[in-house]
Amino acid sequence: MLNPSVLALGKKRSTIREIFEYGNRRAAQVGRENIFDFSIGNPNVPPPQAVQDALLDILHAQQPTAVHGYTSAQGAPANRKAIADNLNARFGTHYSADQLYLTVGAAASVSICFKALTATPEDEFIVFAPYFPEYLVFIEHGAGAKCVVVPPQISDFQIDFAALEARFSPHTKGVVINSPNNPCGVVYSVETLSRLAQMLTQKSEEYGHPIYLISDEPYREIVYDGQPVPFAAQTYPHTLVCYSYSKSLSLPGERIGYVLVPDVAEFSDLYAAVCGAGRVLGYVNAPSLFQQVAARCAGCTADLSIYAENRRLLYDGLTSMGYACVKPDGAFYLFPRTLEPNDYAFCERAKKYDLLLVPGTDFGAPGHMRISYCVQTETIQRALPLFQKLAEEYR
Amino acid sequence: MLNPSVLALGKKRSTIREIFEYGNRRAAQVGRENIFDFSIGNPNVPPPQAVQDALLDILHAQQPTAVHGYTSAQGAPANRKAIADNLNARFGTHYSADQLYLTVGAAASVSICFKALTATPEDEFIVFAPYFPEYLVFIEHGAGAKCVVVPPQISDFQIDFAALEARFSPHTKGVVINSPNNPCGVVYSVETLSRLAQMLTQKSEEYGHPIYLISDEPYREIVYDGQPVPFAAQTYPHTLVCYSYSKSLSLPGERIGYVLVPDVAEFSDLYAAVCGAGRVLGYVNAPSLFQQVAARCAGCTADLSIYAENRRLLYDGLTSMGYACVKPDGAFYLFPRTLEPNDYAFCERAKKYDLLLVPGTDFGAPGHMRISYCVQTETIQRALPLFQKLAEEYR
Repeated sequence: MLNPSVLALGKKRSTIREIFEYGNRRAAQVGRENIFDFSIGNPNVPPPQAVQDALLDILHAQQPTAVHGYTSAQGAPANRKAIADNLNARFGTHYSADQLYLTVGAAASVSICFKALTATPEDEFIVFAPYFPEYLVFIEHGAGAKCVVVPPQISDFQIDFAALEARFSPHTKGVVINSPNNPCGVVYSVETLSRLAQMLTQKSEEYGHPIYLISDEPYREIVYDGQPVPFAAQTYPHTLVCYSYSKSLSLPGERIGYVLVPDVAEFSDLYAAVCGAGRVLGYVNAPSLFQQVAARCAGCTADLSIYAENRRLLYDGLTSMGYACVKPDGAFYLFPRTLEPNDYAFCERAKKYDLLLVPGTDFGAPGHMRISYCVQTETIQRALPLFQKLAEEYR
Repeated sequence: MLNPSVLALGKKRSTIREIFEYGNRRAAQVGRENIFDFSIGNPNVPPPQAVQDALLDILHAQQPTAVHGYTSAQGAPANRKAIADNLNARFGTHYSADQLYLTVGAAASVSICFKALTATPEDEFIVFAPYFPEYLVFIEHGAGAKCVVVPPQISDFQIDFAALEARFSPHTKGVVINSPNNPCGVVYSVETLSRLAQMLTQKSEEYGHPIYLISDEPYREIVYDGQPVPFAAQTYPHTLVCYSYSKSLSLPGERIGYVLVPDVAEFSDLYAAVCGAGRVLGYVNAPSLFQQVAARCAGCTADLSIYAENRRLLYDGLTSMGYACVKPDGAFYLFPRTLEPNDYAFCERAKKYDLLLVPGTDFGAPGHMRISYCVQTETIQRALPLFQKLAEEYR
């Protein structure tokens, strides 16, 4: 008599959560320091000092009724303006505060976009494997639309355009990108984004309605080797940018992010639909104290250098042992091939060495494993010999 | 091509919002002090000192990565335990931490319950007029179920049981109560709750499935004249308690609350469905810093004495002028009859005196007006002569 699909989702622990709990049980047996948990994407570097400074300053200087009171549903105008100003300074854009809708994090941002754009149950959203698994939940169960998956281009995890083109239909409402990517760390190149924009423009004309690009960018600031992340919204006008401060400011528990609505012909309706979707999903307003923190710290990031060092160690170490891996340009994940085709079996075998890895099948890319390297560098140093032993089992 | 129902909801400003914006325009013309805005239910008393103390202590004493990190989806165990302990101490109950699911405020709490319980589009939830208007949005647009309204019993705003009984059907999944009530301030008596429990038990047997009571209680602590608010969950076992700290701790912008899932035979499925609904709606976890604040301050309330004084002044003043009004026992709203049957016309006429009131029709009770008295006491003192002039127009 309960909602069968949400019941199933509530009962089925995610694989990541299962591994996490397994790790806790093992830690109780053999000690936390002997468990090499690469399963969770929880930032392990502290927020920048600016966050703590902003929190204390706001709490000391402002009236509590103002700090903790309702804001307008789309976020307090001053906070939206500060965030728009920061984007404009960084990207040379001309966004106004009225194009921003502040949210309870990126999961809310994408949920709102799917809900706003879904007009009928036939509507489709295209996602690229490997993908963040919750997209399927938000699209199919949250918005009641269909999720269409493009298989991974495993040579470089850029877009397989032939496969993409084959998946468009008159029902396509949007295409979801996540660059830098969870779980594979790929950053879409300027060429990839340009070609995607061309195809989206052409398909929009062909079907007689705009196909929206939903650009989920919580890892935008986490990039390496001085690689810039091209700003997708500058390549394709019908882009809804979904952002979260979870990773850049190391604030994942506080749930603060935004949707940036593009200034296209139908802007007024599109923004209204975003507001309506937020209302229907019960969000009321993004948490008020952290709206202000995000506004003040929009130009800051946590110290991301530990991620760069971890990536170097892990990538160099694993590839020297014979693991095949596309070198990630961003985020804090490595996504190597497993040493046998069955990634579940491989990750199960890795548990012998207390290496906790997530099978790629969960992200739509069998034969891979996700390694979250937002851990202490020492954990990686001590884990590398275990990855070596694991590799030797396959010689 | 956008979602037509969420687009309509995003475009249609709520009447309350319209009045609020009208008030801002008038304030610019004649000065804020000359506008008597009784439209908004934004607490005007500061949070208790314990909130500020908790915030500063947490920020100074704890590691930022722990304070601001992800918690489990249902909330950190220690925070849930503190809240359960507080409930048990106050109500003599035996709740465990594992019955609580922390949420992004009461709107999220009720949205999650509707989503968890809705198995088919034929499912129905019964609400009592006057009601919080967003229930309709969450039930019909969020969960995709039907909202069935019981007309108000305007003599005392308790339940009209004959009208209620006529509205049950085999599709009834739940009944929603909101005591103390927004917009009329009624507190359901022990007799009302007992009779309701009897009817729910009988109808559950008749239809062969549990009918859930969704008890939305954000105003639980805001009561007057030493009246206790009976704890509905103790009267009827199949009660899902939806709570928010918005009003008791004056933290409406921070979005922190919970769902309390009853220990009934199907508990395990019911709790899983609540978790699944939270996941589908994109909530991830309740804001982590304020989870801790709520846990530490669960036994505190803001200084609510200003509301008691405002209620006394306004109730005595208006009834002495001839306004008919059920005396509210809780919340911070008065819901008098308008002096003409058309409440929209009456509230429009009140604008002549810069009295900003919300028509009862918006809450399913035409011929009434909602007066939010979470304002400065001086505002009420200065407004009373204007209510007098307004009344004289109807002599």
